Amino acid sequence: MGEEAAGADRDTAVAGGGDKTPRTERGRRTLRVLLDAAAVEFGERGFHDASISGITRRAGVALGSFYTYFDSKDAVFRALVTDMSAQVRDHVAPAVRAAPDGLAAERAGLAQFIGFVRDHKEIYRIIDEAEFVDADSFRRHYASTAERIEARLRAAAARGEVRGDVSDVHAWAVMGMNVFLGLRYGVWAEDRGIDDVADQAAALLRDGLAPRKG
Amino acid sequence: MGEEAAGADRDTAVAGGGDKTPRTERGRRTLRVLLDAAAVEFGERGFHDASISGITRRAGVALGSFYTYFDSKDAVFRALVTDMSAQVRDHVAPAVRAAPDGLAAERAGLAQFIGFVRDHKEIYRIIDEAEFVDADSFRRHYASTAERIEARLRAAAARGEVRGDVSDVHAWAVMGMNVFLGLRYGVWAEDRGIDDVADQAAALLRDGLAPRKG
Repeated sequence: MGEEAAGADRDTAVAGGGDKTPRTERGRRTLRVLLDAAAVEFGERGFHDASISGITRRAGVALGSFYTYFDSKDAVFRALVTDMSAQVRDHVAPAVRAAPDGLAAERAGLAQFIGFVRDHKEIYRIIDEAEFVDADSFRRHYASTAERIEARLRAAAARGEVRGDVSDVHAWAVMGMNVFLGLRYGVWAEDRGIDDVADQAAALLRDGLAPRKG
Repeated sequence: MGEEAAGADRDTAVAGGGDKTPRTERGRRTLRVLLDAAAVEFGERGFHDASISGITRRAGVALGSFYTYFDSKDAVFRALVTDMSAQVRDHVAPAVRAAPDGLAAERAGLAQFIGFVRDHKEIYRIIDEAEFVDADSFRRHYASTAERIEARLRAAAARGEVRGDVSDVHAWAVMGMNVFLGLRYGVWAEDRGIDDVADQAAALLRDGLAPRKG
């Protein structure tokens, strides 16, 4: 699934791989602070109303420092989408890897995802706005998430843990389920516990909706 | 599910229920032409770049006529989201009603939805942009869609056609699956046939991913 190399991937993606990749620990910390401030700024104000000075003010970083890391508002937004996509992946990965089998892994992934969303409610607004501000990042986020799910399902099928004919259709179905359960029970309201939602979704994924026999 | 009253609902919703509701057949036709033109204008240009004159030009309607139906660009966008939500519902409803049982109904609903999306690829862009332009319409679209799915699942459970413990969690899972399958196989690419996607999703909903026995 490639989660192992996530840290390195993320730095490269964030700064566009050019001269702006931070080389020191201090530089990486400043970049992290700027991205977290950008998440709040874009999440609260939306792309059009957000400003570079709003980001640096929230980050407590001099305006000039911003340009050490990013060329423009577009660049920091693009980096933020890639960063949030990587954050979700890295937050979910350990629980998925630790799960005893493929179906347990999907349940763990969903539970971790809803938990992450509750702590980062701005993620939907940011990734959804990417559809309009930076369509490539939007597409890459969902395409790569679906590819990871499909790879997990195919590996589980090879181990006999799920049906043998899993495909990209199943991966997109699982991703869609997760995205909307995260929106409803992570962002909109916390009227159900995470385990409750994850248990119901896991039972649906395992056995479907057909009436229980026996 | 209330689909029967869809036509009346839609007219009221479109014109905001006030003085602007068209009373004649000709008025309803002009409103329809304006909404179809608005779908193209907002779908191609996005909310910020779209203009009222762009809509009336596409509709072949005088600029002054626009104000017979809508007060502003915001008002026509809001009406368009409500209208597209109703169009999806009305397009899906007959096949859902004609299905022999609850699980067949969900399969039919998904197949109809993907077909609708292929003919109206702009629907995702418009409903997704509502999250930023008109958050209430965005929320209403998904909340009401989930409520319809939940009502269908509960009715099917009462008839013994699906497991007895269906809930809002299942409804949101089914909706999320449908939305993402529509995005991937309706908007992004048509590399799988509608029946192929619907059959795989229906098998997932019916029996889950657990390995087949026997």
